[in-house]
Amino acid sequence: MKKEPYRIYLTENEMPNQWYNIRADMKEQPDLYLHPVTHKTIGLEDMLPIFCNELCAQEMNTTDRYIDIPEELQEFYKIFRPSPVIRAYNLEKALDTPAKIYYKFEGNNTSGSHKLNSAAAQAYYAKKQGLTSLTTETGAGQWGTALSMACAHFGLDLTVYMVKVSYEQKPFRKAVIHTFGADVIPSPSETTQVGREILKAHPGTGGSLGCAISEAIEAALNTPNCRYVLGSVLNQVLLHQSVIGLEAKAAMEKVGEYPDIIIGCAGGGSNLGGLMSAFLKDTLDGTRKGTEFIAVEPASCPSLTRGRYAYDYCDTGHVTPLARMYTLGSDFIPSANHAGGLRYHGMSPILSKLYHDGYMKAVSVEQTKVFEAAVFFAKHETILPAPESAHAIRTAIDEAVKCRESGEAKTILFGMTGTGYFDMNAYTSYQEGEMNDYIPTDEDLQKGFDTLPKI
Amino acid sequence: MKKEPYRIYLTENEMPNQWYNIRADMKEQPDLYLHPVTHKTIGLEDMLPIFCNELCAQEMNTTDRYIDIPEELQEFYKIFRPSPVIRAYNLEKALDTPAKIYYKFEGNNTSGSHKLNSAAAQAYYAKKQGLTSLTTETGAGQWGTALSMACAHFGLDLTVYMVKVSYEQKPFRKAVIHTFGADVIPSPSETTQVGREILKAHPGTGGSLGCAISEAIEAALNTPNCRYVLGSVLNQVLLHQSVIGLEAKAAMEKVGEYPDIIIGCAGGGSNLGGLMSAFLKDTLDGTRKGTEFIAVEPASCPSLTRGRYAYDYCDTGHVTPLARMYTLGSDFIPSANHAGGLRYHGMSPILSKLYHDGYMKAVSVEQTKVFEAAVFFAKHETILPAPESAHAIRTAIDEAVKCRESGEAKTILFGMTGTGYFDMNAYTSYQEGEMNDYIPTDEDLQKGFDTLPKI
Repeated sequence: MKKEPYRIYLTENEMPNQWYNIRADMKEQPDLYLHPVTHKTIGLEDMLPIFCNELCAQEMNTTDRYIDIPEELQEFYKIFRPSPVIRAYNLEKALDTPAKIYYKFEGNNTSGSHKLNSAAAQAYYAKKQGLTSLTTETGAGQWGTALSMACAHFGLDLTVYMVKVSYEQKPFRKAVIHTFGADVIPSPSETTQVGREILKAHPGTGGSLGCAISEAIEAALNTPNCRYVLGSVLNQVLLHQSVIGLEAKAAMEKVGEYPDIIIGCAGGGSNLGGLMSAFLKDTLDGTRKGTEFIAVEPASCPSLTRGRYAYDYCDTGHVTPLARMYTLGSDFIPSANHAGGLRYHGMSPILSKLYHDGYMKAVSVEQTKVFEAAVFFAKHETILPAPESAHAIRTAIDEAVKCRESGEAKTILFGMTGTGYFDMNAYTSYQEGEMNDYIPTDEDLQKGFDTLPKI
Repeated sequence: MKKEPYRIYLTENEMPNQWYNIRADMKEQPDLYLHPVTHKTIGLEDMLPIFCNELCAQEMNTTDRYIDIPEELQEFYKIFRPSPVIRAYNLEKALDTPAKIYYKFEGNNTSGSHKLNSAAAQAYYAKKQGLTSLTTETGAGQWGTALSMACAHFGLDLTVYMVKVSYEQKPFRKAVIHTFGADVIPSPSETTQVGREILKAHPGTGGSLGCAISEAIEAALNTPNCRYVLGSVLNQVLLHQSVIGLEAKAAMEKVGEYPDIIIGCAGGGSNLGGLMSAFLKDTLDGTRKGTEFIAVEPASCPSLTRGRYAYDYCDTGHVTPLARMYTLGSDFIPSANHAGGLRYHGMSPILSKLYHDGYMKAVSVEQTKVFEAAVFFAKHETILPAPESAHAIRTAIDEAVKCRESGEAKTILFGMTGTGYFDMNAYTSYQEGEMNDYIPTDEDLQKGFDTLPKI
């Protein structure tokens, strides 16, 4: 019997040349963004001072099912794509499961994650518009690294506001971003008004993603020929990340497979949204039935499983539009878990809407269980996963074990978003038994909900 | 015009199922190993207490041109191989060179380098022989990581003696090795007699690769059902690493190319030996003429360019056999450069013989020039190279610039051995202008030569 390969690669000719815009197939659209002060619906013109023109248009585009990937960008994608779909033969064997486990591995580029897909697109459109610089924020550092790589490629200056606690805990992340020529500023900083205010109110704070977003936006607004870019949450980001799912679907078709269960970690939703959209299309248009989509989030930051579906700010400084999404409140302070990419109070409005409408499940997992899965996976599949990715691994293993118990040979696909080379402190903490499994109490959550704007 | 792809992958069916043993085609053989005490030629039986049986046989095998890769090992290779040959379109463009630049990229596995090719083979043979544990040493840490991954796969215990200065400077390397379940002991240590003696003579020493080798061998000899394994220098290692060149040659054939120049960094020789052998075969048997082979070494540890071709110990404790090789003397203390994988006093006996017989050139490069090339490469090719790999990049860029000046459209292939995620201190040191370019004086080298055994 011919065994299917471990790694399924598309050829460059088989790579998608269009992104898939799931909003064109959604029965109902996510609610519109609201102005942070007036609470009125915002239009394209309100976004143009902050984001690149073309990206604003993509943000508002609910009708075009497919959007061309520009040729120059397709060329850039070819430097690090296609990424493989990998059959986890060794993991299956170790779990003694009849399930077939596949993962789409996005970690084989220097940013260490899928973030480069959208970073490349956003830098391309900025360059095309004649901009000379960009600003952004980064938490764990993958997004900042990815954007620094994209800006080096397209010749743009970049300033990255890095959450101060990450800046201090992950000096090597900062060094990688420097290597690609970008500036890194620990946030909150004295370089912006919002930063100065936060520092005054909370001297010695380690910062947060929401705070870094506020600073990066202010810096962009005050710099000529500059715009702000964001690596998750937004519709445009999910659009760019749709290449993950389009490639995965084409690769699985090559071996005659279609997943029964699709699993992804969810912080802002960029990875899961990108992975699942091409498959969800088949559910939405009735081509396939019964496909399960599962979002996995940390029990310490449970926006889908315990959050409210409500209008909220996307940042701490309340300068961004309001989005209707699952949220823990923009003042929610996530606990010090080791998956920085999943420590965000909100969730992509598209994913939030899909979850609200019952197209998607969500589970939350505790940190030590996540690292247990990460180490098990590393030993059997020889890839050291990022803590974020390990959330999906945890649930994929749990589903495969259910199959062992039920005897069902389900096909599981999960998003293996990246590598954990810059997260070794977390692995050491796990191995030394020093990892905590903090879960917020209902009272903790209520404090966040109390800060939700009254709409 | 159809452009050839960025990445050329073999299919799993096209992967080599045999290693290539270049000794079968060499006009003259490397000189035989000598016993460290008697200085008499050693035979298979002398090696059996130290190395696995099958590996001893491979070490001595000068006649079988091809040696089968066992099926179970081929399966393991498929978890992380084939590795791509990448056309460096962006680097070519940035250099404005008519040269075509290709690189064989071995960094897309968690060990971060090509080391896993031989680690997998050595762990396989150990398991097959019924051994239960292995010992080894590691300098920069790639080899220790690779072997920990292989031992996790085959279910073997592993103790890694890690050069103390690396152990202290690279805690994350140690953490990765721990994640795969191996023990790591900083060397020199109190766990061996040779370690205790070195500590007594040099209290507070940071250790060396030669010292860690001595300790790992002693530990293997004193542990039941245990053997020692080594990641470079040896003939068996070059044999296993021949998969690099076999894959590279097959991939380049797919696009109708054959390199005019083949470049690899050289510390112990495992990478360059593996990359060049399949191509050198064509030179040796007269199929091709004029192919250039270039070894690149650090100016601070110039074993080929300034060393002696002489019998020498492979370790500091003088427990290993003597090998005839280019050497700086087993007591040579390499300067504190940032390419730990290239800080070895000797060189593979096979490569030494080929160099001595004029089949290969060697150049030495200074550290800041190496990092200048590394950063340039990262910005244009979006892969962050290991400092070791960056030596080859430096020379590939130099050759491509020569082509720009001469107008020659040469085809260059270099070995991109691995990634630099665990070497960010080195990148930071470069960016902050704190990197030194130490070059040993003739007097410094003479001290090393004075320690050479009188044969």
